[in-house]
Amino acid sequence: MKIIFTFQPREEFVSDLKNSFPEAEFHFYKKVKEAEHELANAEVIVTMGEDLTDDHIERSEKCKWIMVTSAGLEKMPLDAIKRRGILVTNARGIHKIPMAEFSIGLMLQHAKQLQSVWEQEKQAVWSRRLPTSELYEASLLILGAGAIGGEIARLAKAFRMNVSGVNSTGSDADHFDKMFTLDTLREQLPEADYIISVLPSTARTKAILKVDHFEEMKDTAVFINIGRGDLVEESVLLEVAEKKAIGHMYLDVFDQEPLPEGHPFWTKEGITVTPHLSSITKKYMPRALEIFKKNLSTYSNNRENYINVIDAERGY
Amino acid sequence: MKIIFTFQPREEFVSDLKNSFPEAEFHFYKKVKEAEHELANAEVIVTMGEDLTDDHIERSEKCKWIMVTSAGLEKMPLDAIKRRGILVTNARGIHKIPMAEFSIGLMLQHAKQLQSVWEQEKQAVWSRRLPTSELYEASLLILGAGAIGGEIARLAKAFRMNVSGVNSTGSDADHFDKMFTLDTLREQLPEADYIISVLPSTARTKAILKVDHFEEMKDTAVFINIGRGDLVEESVLLEVAEKKAIGHMYLDVFDQEPLPEGHPFWTKEGITVTPHLSSITKKYMPRALEIFKKNLSTYSNNRENYINVIDAERGY
Repeated sequence: MKIIFTFQPREEFVSDLKNSFPEAEFHFYKKVKEAEHELANAEVIVTMGEDLTDDHIERSEKCKWIMVTSAGLEKMPLDAIKRRGILVTNARGIHKIPMAEFSIGLMLQHAKQLQSVWEQEKQAVWSRRLPTSELYEASLLILGAGAIGGEIARLAKAFRMNVSGVNSTGSDADHFDKMFTLDTLREQLPEADYIISVLPSTARTKAILKVDHFEEMKDTAVFINIGRGDLVEESVLLEVAEKKAIGHMYLDVFDQEPLPEGHPFWTKEGITVTPHLSSITKKYMPRALEIFKKNLSTYSNNRENYINVIDAERGY
Repeated sequence: MKIIFTFQPREEFVSDLKNSFPEAEFHFYKKVKEAEHELANAEVIVTMGEDLTDDHIERSEKCKWIMVTSAGLEKMPLDAIKRRGILVTNARGIHKIPMAEFSIGLMLQHAKQLQSVWEQEKQAVWSRRLPTSELYEASLLILGAGAIGGEIARLAKAFRMNVSGVNSTGSDADHFDKMFTLDTLREQLPEADYIISVLPSTARTKAILKVDHFEEMKDTAVFINIGRGDLVEESVLLEVAEKKAIGHMYLDVFDQEPLPEGHPFWTKEGITVTPHLSSITKKYMPRALEIFKKNLSTYSNNRENYINVIDAERGY
């Protein structure tokens, strides 16, 4: 059984896989381009989910299973996969802990003005005159109240924040004080001190936040996007920054990633860019490969009850 | 009734006080030096707790009550106050929320490597190769398991950290998985990823952490001191940094504050200086003055059941 990785895991993971599945033949490549000559023989392909094309699927004549070590599937050639009837599994479920910690971390460093504190420290300046605040009793609005949004909400409630959410039905969920839908979220915007989006990219969520949404927010409001970049058009974000309509924007996701050199976001006052970091920690790859290993056992044995099977028709 | 402030609150607080107590005669000074000519007539003195001397107490012949708008009383001339039988109240209890948020904020920005992220952002560098980690399942040791330490522990448990504490008896407390005393804390040092001290300055806590304590910690351990600077001698901290015995030290409190210009802590690799910020937020003064106002009502009426009365003999 030939298993092709289109990325190179660290040595400890490579040897763990080889030891755990001595009967499998693992091939690791740094990128899909280097793996192309082997795809025709691959029974299993392991990908981060952003590199496979229709052409790759066509070439992979023997492929029966594709493991995607991320959660977003919008760049996967699902039509071609569906035509071939290839099993797809992903790594959903491993993002909520790191993404919730990243969200709370961004809010706290904003409230405590840590960017200014570190600047002061570099200049050896002792000054306590910073507009520091608290998460305590501040209002948080989470766009996307699924597993990740729910974990952010759980932690936010521990800080005694007022937590509202947006989901598709507006129905209650654990850890949320109030719930809205995309159609009714407008009424909550003037209340929110922090707005965090973890929404995926779907036809329903594309470019839904307009300049007037931001104009309804507090002028001190903080907008954090760790979902997908196409939630707001870039021109909207730049106009909001230009108008200083809200306090600050932390953007972790973009239409084009990596964000190109010279992109105005890099230098725009009121916008802080982070390099799609929210789910990245040392624990990401071990958790993703743990799912892969469980599914590989299943694949090698009864082929029943895989974890995180994707319906290629629905796309999730 | 003459009430002397040895600091100048913002205008909103001044007018609130004057409106709430129209019968009182408030005098606000930027520092105690400017207030000295009025001390002889003061019935009540409101101080941040770091400026009064024995001489001031002697001059304040009519003084019946001193309100300290902080919690630390080690700089108060308590012997002179005791001799005169002056009532002392402080603002204890208002520190736990901001200090716990500050602690979690420092740990999260360390785990997420946010100082490096901001440096990258200034250079418009998109790089995800940062040694980011999680608080999830990391071990935290809190020196000082009182109200503030307990609030840090409560939040840390929400992040699913393993939380140990040090208190005077070693007996269990809410939100702590294990408890130690200053005598037994050594056994927990090799386990801790984060060590936070909120210990006050007492004869029992002075200079108790030595170089060999730090050498027993993990080489990635993070030490955060938001208690009092004299917990560790400066020479010890510098030697620990020089030896790179642990991962990083965040110091918010010092023997001498402000930390003098040119002090080696400012530039030492492995040490980050913050200007005694942990309890400072926009909500500090309103909360402190809320206690003052309640006690001023009590003082003006039945003089029974003051909040936060200090025993000048014991010093707390």
